[in-house]
Amino acid sequence: MKIIHTITEMQQYSKEQQRKGKIIGIVPTMGYLHDGHLSLVDTARKNGADCVVVTIFVNPIQFAPNEDFDKYPRDLQRDCTLLEAKNVDAVFAPSVKEMYVEEPTCLVVENKLSRGLCAKTRPTHFQGVTTVVAKLFNAVLPDIAVFGQKDAQQARVLKRMVRDLNFPIRLVISPLIREKDGLALSSRNKYLSAEERENALVLSRSLKEAKEALEAGNTSIDSAIETIKNNIAAKGGKVDYVECVDSETLEDVRTKTGREIMFVLAAYFGSTRLIDNILFTY
Amino acid sequence: MKIIHTITEMQQYSKEQQRKGKIIGIVPTMGYLHDGHLSLVDTARKNGADCVVVTIFVNPIQFAPNEDFDKYPRDLQRDCTLLEAKNVDAVFAPSVKEMYVEEPTCLVVENKLSRGLCAKTRPTHFQGVTTVVAKLFNAVLPDIAVFGQKDAQQARVLKRMVRDLNFPIRLVISPLIREKDGLALSSRNKYLSAEERENALVLSRSLKEAKEALEAGNTSIDSAIETIKNNIAAKGGKVDYVECVDSETLEDVRTKTGREIMFVLAAYFGSTRLIDNILFTY
Repeated sequence: MKIIHTITEMQQYSKEQQRKGKIIGIVPTMGYLHDGHLSLVDTARKNGADCVVVTIFVNPIQFAPNEDFDKYPRDLQRDCTLLEAKNVDAVFAPSVKEMYVEEPTCLVVENKLSRGLCAKTRPTHFQGVTTVVAKLFNAVLPDIAVFGQKDAQQARVLKRMVRDLNFPIRLVISPLIREKDGLALSSRNKYLSAEERENALVLSRSLKEAKEALEAGNTSIDSAIETIKNNIAAKGGKVDYVECVDSETLEDVRTKTGREIMFVLAAYFGSTRLIDNILFTY
Repeated sequence: MKIIHTITEMQQYSKEQQRKGKIIGIVPTMGYLHDGHLSLVDTARKNGADCVVVTIFVNPIQFAPNEDFDKYPRDLQRDCTLLEAKNVDAVFAPSVKEMYVEEPTCLVVENKLSRGLCAKTRPTHFQGVTTVVAKLFNAVLPDIAVFGQKDAQQARVLKRMVRDLNFPIRLVISPLIREKDGLALSSRNKYLSAEERENALVLSRSLKEAKEALEAGNTSIDSAIETIKNNIAAKGGKVDYVECVDSETLEDVRTKTGREIMFVLAAYFGSTRLIDNILFTY
């Protein structure tokens, strides 16, 4: 497995793969990998990638000054061991200095899908994400890009970026992976105390119950949202948002339409902000 | 010469060239080609492009509602004849509908170099340019991109975009081409009446005189700027701006520094807005 730290070397590696006719798949991550990330590698392979590049970069410009950029967990050596075991072809792990040689003055900005949901609390987050992913795309030159359903809004914003900027890339959204007890896998779960972690199970449980109640015709979307909010509060969580949106446009959905919808939420347990979602046709 | 109208076909063509090991050069234009554009093709070849793709697209999102998008001259057939004679490999001429299938919500925005000079009169112009050029880069997948020094600010903004977003592209700025009498070549020159055209010669003449006077030690940058403004006004032109800036950062220069500087200007003759500039070390 090749470990690459500079953009120039990454581009050279990818151009070589292209000349060999390889299909390059990119799996962008911030490292501190868990089984959710590793499942993205499988998704890349299943979608035809015969050269999988995992990028590991904790991107400063998607964190606000008050957020957890400094304490975000990092362990490149452990990550590389996990990726080697998955037969990943290359890891691209640039330094912050390599990615942002000088103060960047050019950003990629999405103005619609990136406005609501997480953006209400994290207003500059998604322009950090779109910008860094555009940079990673231009460094890795992939044919396929895999993002997790866990970051539901991010995946849709990036899909829009690929469409609007004509990146020659097929973006695949890979299913959300949970612990056996339902907690959505996240590198941030390590911030949780044992008690917070136990309480946070309310997120996945409430989402599942909302889906089941709607499918059984036992509730309305509005009531389901209220129930989820109340459940979270009852477990000492602080709700950031709970919404029901169209899975493509991220526009609010309040009635049965036969389209794919998502319940999406963010909530704090202690000082840790967790996100979760459930996707189904309703 | 291949004439391509869709993004998918363009990407397929370019990927084929890449697999053959060809160096792809892109020359983005809005068509209605003149010798200035054709010189960009030569510059692409001189810089190693063995497959030159000229794009022809009058980009609506870089025109403000009050500007000349509708009347901008177009003649694809004539353009293709000229490009065929230059042995161009492919022309990419997408429709507006092909480039903007839906209302784009994702833009590339440069926040520093694109703030002054032309942006004062055309505040949304450069985000239209950076966005469309990012799209054209992703459609044509070039190794080299050639832009004219005529659009001095545009070339620097795009150079910054290539740097900040890590496009795997070498951006080359090709010299400004003038008519024998000094008028900078521009598709918009056709808007000028004979009298306006005669009066507009003051632009190139004043820029040349400013350079010569500074090199001879006969004036200061401030005085040179005043003289240019007065000369333009004396010929009935309406000055938009006359500035002296660092050729890379576009920051104001007012003293001798030994760096490459540009006098850049925009002025109206009748309702036609013309730009011009001169580049030298001072």
